[in-house]
Amino acid sequence: MAKLVECVPNVSEGRRGDVIDRMADAIRATEGVRLLDRTSDVDHNRSVFTYAGEPDAVVRATHTLIDHAYREVDMNTHKGEHPRLGAVDVVPFVPLAGMTMDECVDLAHRFGREVATRHQVPVYFYAKAAMRPERVRLPDIRKPEYEGLAALLETTHVPDAGPKQLHPTAGAIVVGARPFLIAFNIELDSTDLKLAQRIAKEIRESSGGLPAVQAKGFTLTDPPRVQVSMNLLDHTVTSLATVWREVEARASAAGVKVLRGELIGLIPLDAVLQVAADSLKLDAFTRDRVIESHFLE
Amino acid sequence: MAKLVECVPNVSEGRRGDVIDRMADAIRATEGVRLLDRTSDVDHNRSVFTYAGEPDAVVRATHTLIDHAYREVDMNTHKGEHPRLGAVDVVPFVPLAGMTMDECVDLAHRFGREVATRHQVPVYFYAKAAMRPERVRLPDIRKPEYEGLAALLETTHVPDAGPKQLHPTAGAIVVGARPFLIAFNIELDSTDLKLAQRIAKEIRESSGGLPAVQAKGFTLTDPPRVQVSMNLLDHTVTSLATVWREVEARASAAGVKVLRGELIGLIPLDAVLQVAADSLKLDAFTRDRVIESHFLE
Repeated sequence: MAKLVECVPNVSEGRRGDVIDRMADAIRATEGVRLLDRTSDVDHNRSVFTYAGEPDAVVRATHTLIDHAYREVDMNTHKGEHPRLGAVDVVPFVPLAGMTMDECVDLAHRFGREVATRHQVPVYFYAKAAMRPERVRLPDIRKPEYEGLAALLETTHVPDAGPKQLHPTAGAIVVGARPFLIAFNIELDSTDLKLAQRIAKEIRESSGGLPAVQAKGFTLTDPPRVQVSMNLLDHTVTSLATVWREVEARASAAGVKVLRGELIGLIPLDAVLQVAADSLKLDAFTRDRVIESHFLE
Repeated sequence: MAKLVECVPNVSEGRRGDVIDRMADAIRATEGVRLLDRTSDVDHNRSVFTYAGEPDAVVRATHTLIDHAYREVDMNTHKGEHPRLGAVDVVPFVPLAGMTMDECVDLAHRFGREVATRHQVPVYFYAKAAMRPERVRLPDIRKPEYEGLAALLETTHVPDAGPKQLHPTAGAIVVGARPFLIAFNIELDSTDLKLAQRIAKEIRESSGGLPAVQAKGFTLTDPPRVQVSMNLLDHTVTSLATVWREVEARASAAGVKVLRGELIGLIPLDAVLQVAADSLKLDAFTRDRVIESHFLE
């Protein structure tokens, strides 16, 4: 495997099981692509598919998914609690291995322009692929929602690619590139929510802590305990090992033990290697040192 | 990939480059097998090949290697410093993933019997595949060497498979199954060899330390420092994380910092996952949580 990229499209359909199954099957049927996860939410009326593979294969799967979704979803009748602009609402590409972020941005731009031409749909580029500073954050782009977007296409929401006119049924689409997001929780041997909240505040970027870290303190019920719940927005900037150390040091200073870590979902091999390299103080611990890496497709 | 096994045959030829290259090429040419390492030593007149793949593929590669070696190496004229019994001296199979040690022992027995029949060569089973307690340790089997073995074939060295008679040119062969061996060094911020030797003694199994750990203290020259050099004979019994902790605690108690770890060669994914799981106190951190594991051949 030369390059590995992940794609996590959000589709505005979370209720019709047969429709969602057909979308999942279409991804699975794409040679060289693995569907790693799918979740659907009835209230949000929204499904999220996570799949990975070499860039060409992932692009093919995503075109197929869009074809399916545009055939099935009509934004004129779509209702759901989650903000959205289109039938396929957002398509983030994530470089996992053998690929720089710049290459992934190029991929997102190329893909977005293909979608614009193929479907005559307005395309916005976001995150690392954003072409304007006010389009870096997804919520900022999505704010008017589908219902309010038509009126803004000539002013604040001129598309980055495609026509200045909504697709009659599919609305608009947001395409981007972003680092892999790791959701990681650390459970403390304590029921002191204030402690978990203080640690979260100290380590999160928004209050001057570690870069590319979001954190909150939570209470768990069974057994009763508190947890520092984190998103690592870019583990090459702040790693799992670093947040573990920082949370442990602060808990320990308060006389509280750290009980366990919890990783949500799948993570890329490089993030695991980083933890091992940090723990054992290894120089240059690259994936080719792992036997299995020589057996990748 | 359902099962992954490694094989590390030692061949009694370390001088004729063209012969050794042909053996390496034969392994490489076997579909589904990756040659991970090869080293040859002129003084020992011996080469070690490391390769892995699914069990059937690895067995095929090893038969091919033996065919080549038996054609090229004549034990009647072989000289070298390293003790040996045959043209292909020892063939250890190592379960890496998806395979128990018992299954690997079965594989070694089946393979050894095939070799005995195919080449009419005496076969000894060692390590986990040993059929007698005095044949667990390789040096015990190898003690008489090729030159002394013929006289012992009816007494102490009755083969476990094959004829009670040396192969006219290839001698005998030792086949076995053993856990993956991890060679791991830890460098201390000190020039105190006695400290490194004391730590090594405290942690190694032979002097009552950690099970399945061999350790020695060494001096490094540039820059001058000491090192605890270890073999983890079974990382599922004593892990990298455990030896790191034990060495660090002892160095720290002597006021000495641990500078860096050094892994020699390649290691299996499971050993890396184990380090990450230990560092982050993760429950059940299995290989299917790593995205790349879904792209194994």
